[in-house]
Amino acid sequence: MTTAAPAALPDSHPLVTGRTSGSPLVRALRGDRPETLPVWFMRQAGRSLPEYRELRVGTAMLDACLDPAMASEITLQPVRRHGVDAGIFFSDIVVPIKLAGVDVEIVPGRGPVLGSPIRTAADVDALAPLDPAALAPITEAVQRTVAELGDTPLIGFAGAPFTLAAYLVEGGPSKDHIRARTLMHSDPETWSRLLDWAAGVSGAFLRAQVLAGASAAQLFDSWVGSLSRADYVASVAPHSATALGHVAELGVPRIHFGVGSGEVLREMTTLGSTTPGDPADAVAVDAVGVDWRLPLDEAVRRVGSGVTVQGNIDPAMLAAPWPVLEAHVRDVVRRGGAARAHVVNLGHGVPPETDPTVLTRVVELIHSLGDGTGVGEESVA
Amino acid sequence: MTTAAPAALPDSHPLVTGRTSGSPLVRALRGDRPETLPVWFMRQAGRSLPEYRELRVGTAMLDACLDPAMASEITLQPVRRHGVDAGIFFSDIVVPIKLAGVDVEIVPGRGPVLGSPIRTAADVDALAPLDPAALAPITEAVQRTVAELGDTPLIGFAGAPFTLAAYLVEGGPSKDHIRARTLMHSDPETWSRLLDWAAGVSGAFLRAQVLAGASAAQLFDSWVGSLSRADYVASVAPHSATALGHVAELGVPRIHFGVGSGEVLREMTTLGSTTPGDPADAVAVDAVGVDWRLPLDEAVRRVGSGVTVQGNIDPAMLAAPWPVLEAHVRDVVRRGGAARAHVVNLGHGVPPETDPTVLTRVVELIHSLGDGTGVGEESVA
Repeated sequence: MTTAAPAALPDSHPLVTGRTSGSPLVRALRGDRPETLPVWFMRQAGRSLPEYRELRVGTAMLDACLDPAMASEITLQPVRRHGVDAGIFFSDIVVPIKLAGVDVEIVPGRGPVLGSPIRTAADVDALAPLDPAALAPITEAVQRTVAELGDTPLIGFAGAPFTLAAYLVEGGPSKDHIRARTLMHSDPETWSRLLDWAAGVSGAFLRAQVLAGASAAQLFDSWVGSLSRADYVASVAPHSATALGHVAELGVPRIHFGVGSGEVLREMTTLGSTTPGDPADAVAVDAVGVDWRLPLDEAVRRVGSGVTVQGNIDPAMLAAPWPVLEAHVRDVVRRGGAARAHVVNLGHGVPPETDPTVLTRVVELIHSLGDGTGVGEESVA
Repeated sequence: MTTAAPAALPDSHPLVTGRTSGSPLVRALRGDRPETLPVWFMRQAGRSLPEYRELRVGTAMLDACLDPAMASEITLQPVRRHGVDAGIFFSDIVVPIKLAGVDVEIVPGRGPVLGSPIRTAADVDALAPLDPAALAPITEAVQRTVAELGDTPLIGFAGAPFTLAAYLVEGGPSKDHIRARTLMHSDPETWSRLLDWAAGVSGAFLRAQVLAGASAAQLFDSWVGSLSRADYVASVAPHSATALGHVAELGVPRIHFGVGSGEVLREMTTLGSTTPGDPADAVAVDAVGVDWRLPLDEAVRRVGSGVTVQGNIDPAMLAAPWPVLEAHVRDVVRRGGAARAHVVNLGHGVPPETDPTVLTRVVELIHSLGDGTGVGEESVA
């Protein structure tokens, strides 16, 4: 399936020239079952790779994200090493809020920390929109990367408005995001304006990556697992739909991933639409990412078979003896057979301590399994 | 309903003398619907109270837990102030592992931190059993507390083996407990021995509180939400059953609470039993705690109607304007009507910043609602 891409993408875009439109990743995201299962790993570009650690010496995280040559090289490293079916743009979910002028740093061992948290109506009023010119280093990094990737697609990504808002309100990482959720209930009007702002910033960041050559877009809602379904539907999902709306008419496949998202998986898939996976629908996503907690066949029961699933090898299995890991990977592939199509991935990011040779071996195993439908009962522990 | 308590409890125990056996809390836990709904708050004893902060000045957390007079006074403070229907013993889930000789401190703003994490078979071999004599300060604190409480029951509590093991393996708080879950998969034999040890320590801690006068026992699995159902059933639940088994023949009602437990709520209720809520069953619990993510009526659909539910006012609602909070509390009570009985609580601990007068007002509201069955549709926002 090599659907012609809509006109809004530049003529040189890999989906328009056809360079990536027939790739296993793009085909699977669009609902096809390619001859070999596509596989990539969340956080494949990063600390598990010695070549990454070497390159990063002396450069702060956000500086690395905003150096086009470095961000591009880091994005390419795992593609070269593991032979994965996609690059994922090396960045951080707080990059667009930094580009919008928010005082934020990434503190090693802790995570993003804000100079001053955003907690009041006045704080929200003071947030500036993201100047498109500020996205120049992102555009350049993506263009460099895509030029190197050949027919391997690049996935663009952005943090979802709730996750951005959680960092903004908490002022840093937190366990249950109670300050953010408190603002949601105590001042819903300010909450809504904050998430509108975050959706604009996030959407612009995602759109810049797609226009510069990314062949798919993933919205990443790290903290969605702290919400009840009712709160997600009423106070979060509409803003996630707004963020994804920024790339809707570009026609690239859209992936939505959350951690601990079992209770809201269907809502993350439809985002208010009634037709998950319908490419004519500006809201519904093409693929839903599933974390390690939920078996993929159970995920398909929740979201229906109109959408591709992505996941969900348990990162905690990567250090297990190979026969245990292999049985687990085969089980994931077998359960993924319940969906219309399956993009293999981890159920969360690569842990920094991971032995990268294990990841390469997992890619080889998955590529040996063909389209995944031949993985039967015998392989399940 | 004032069921005669089994002989294994001391004659002076409040459930044997009848002092607490007719209390709303004990009746509700045993499946009755008392005339007024019982209410207490997880972490009601603690930082939200100015009298607590004053008392704690100059005393480290674990020292306060092991000072019988101080632990007792802290336990009593919220009962006096709020008029809640139960005291919850002031302690910390790492107290029993400290009493077993593990080098652990609670670092303010961070949480429990171990001198050296437990990650290998040799580390597990080196763990000593808990000397019953070490529990003397716990016994004394509970006895003092119960003497003051009159006919208000005290709830004893302990951390579940998985949560203890997560701290032991990680060496401190962590987000997804990946080191612990990695050990589970990479060395299941060592994992099993570690959880056996934790279950013994946790069970002994819980049993000491019950023998000293606690009228109910809550097992608290803070981190259970990081597990898939398959991992919970295979590698965790049997050990939680072992921990709860330490108080089984004492016949006190047992509550099981976990955070983010939606996927495993039924398994936390049955713990391998097929008859949730059957008091003749040594394994099944009497009440299941539900966090803020899952509406209580949905929780009842998952666990069945043979068990009492506890919860689940969203702590993030406590700072909302009163009409919003009141509507939420009424909604929680209405949904709790789906269960055989309901113990009102928060869906997680009291946030330290909470205005305590709000908690008192919530107690008054709940006590004004009678047995809860009169709270109808009109009150739902």
